[in-house]
Amino acid sequence: MSVEKKALVVLSGGQDSTTCLYWALDFFGKSQVETITFDYGQRHIMEIASAKKIAAIANVANKVIPIDTFSALGGNSLTEPNIPVENGLGHSNQLPNTFVPGRNLIFLTYAAAFAYQRGIDHLVTGVAQTDYSGYPDCRQETIAALEKTLQLGMESRISLHTPLMFKSKKETVLMAEKLGALPALGFSHTCYNNSYPPCTICSACQLRAKGFAEADITDPLLNRYNHG
Amino acid sequence: MSVEKKALVVLSGGQDSTTCLYWALDFFGKSQVETITFDYGQRHIMEIASAKKIAAIANVANKVIPIDTFSALGGNSLTEPNIPVENGLGHSNQLPNTFVPGRNLIFLTYAAAFAYQRGIDHLVTGVAQTDYSGYPDCRQETIAALEKTLQLGMESRISLHTPLMFKSKKETVLMAEKLGALPALGFSHTCYNNSYPPCTICSACQLRAKGFAEADITDPLLNRYNHG
Repeated sequence: MSVEKKALVVLSGGQDSTTCLYWALDFFGKSQVETITFDYGQRHIMEIASAKKIAAIANVANKVIPIDTFSALGGNSLTEPNIPVENGLGHSNQLPNTFVPGRNLIFLTYAAAFAYQRGIDHLVTGVAQTDYSGYPDCRQETIAALEKTLQLGMESRISLHTPLMFKSKKETVLMAEKLGALPALGFSHTCYNNSYPPCTICSACQLRAKGFAEADITDPLLNRYNHG
Repeated sequence: MSVEKKALVVLSGGQDSTTCLYWALDFFGKSQVETITFDYGQRHIMEIASAKKIAAIANVANKVIPIDTFSALGGNSLTEPNIPVENGLGHSNQLPNTFVPGRNLIFLTYAAAFAYQRGIDHLVTGVAQTDYSGYPDCRQETIAALEKTLQLGMESRISLHTPLMFKSKKETVLMAEKLGALPALGFSHTCYNNSYPPCTICSACQLRAKGFAEADITDPLLNRYNHG
């Protein structure tokens, strides 16, 4: 089903945004989709490399936008609970100290501004209020309020699409398979420890593994390393 | 009247935000107020110097936060009508080519994140839907939607205060006088041509002059130059 509208996908290089990219290709049509990626200094080399590779595989444009503001805002305060350091890998297993409350609002506002200037009315993001994230800026209620704010603040008709909002990780994996996103998912980045091949023991790797296991699908990311 | 709450004022270094700072000092109490200034690369040396000077005069803390994202987002597209170049001064009399739709949403979201991390629930901004600005992200309706978005997205009790929202420039000048803001206004930055002393002929200088004239008050900025 194609609706002949242009769409911009916020592509972080992770599992969810990659799946969203393929959802958008299916929904809006292959020639209507482009992607935006934010370089905000955290795990960015791997994430951005993943995003670029995935955009190339999907044959869509990708624009990388720098954000240098978070570290200045965040200071040294770690306002979110740390992820438990259970495997002795220490510091790198925690949330970045550049974490900023409402960070997703910033990403989506920048993306909406970029979309506006390119005549794009549809913004796609992989936020979900299920599973682990728990961030209030990823919830449906917040996204709906932000959509209204962006429409008013830019006098635009921007729509925010969140195809994963109420999906479990298992459902996201099944959706990815159906949309033909698995080959691209082989290049997505998930590991909190920035390990390549993935460490498999950090909470992000384990959550990803759980979703693939429950969907009874082999993670193409692991497959990639197992076979060469 | 003091309400014993901490407040963060978005201080650009211009006339409106300076007046808002003095409103906040009056409303929240002198020891409760701090300021935040954004360095986004446009007219910034003068504006930021003005903000710092004004914060020093008011004896409040000032934090300058860098934003390097706008130029990457804005590209070369000038989406807003140019300010007419009537005085032959050319390029510098136009809106910056880093103008980004919804830019004020970004400023206020960053400010709210900063406030959140410092336990501040009150944010003060000088946006007004009267007079010249015309930007949709300065309107009451937008600010109300953004306030709700920030509350949901950060799980915070943040309030957005816009003491100038419905005031004319004349009313803002009268308010500034009443609040004792005139000395600080002598160091605020307005001129589109970045001229020091102000050019007096660009649209920003003329609008400012009109407000002071209608309030029948001498602009302390001009006074500063007239008397050395």
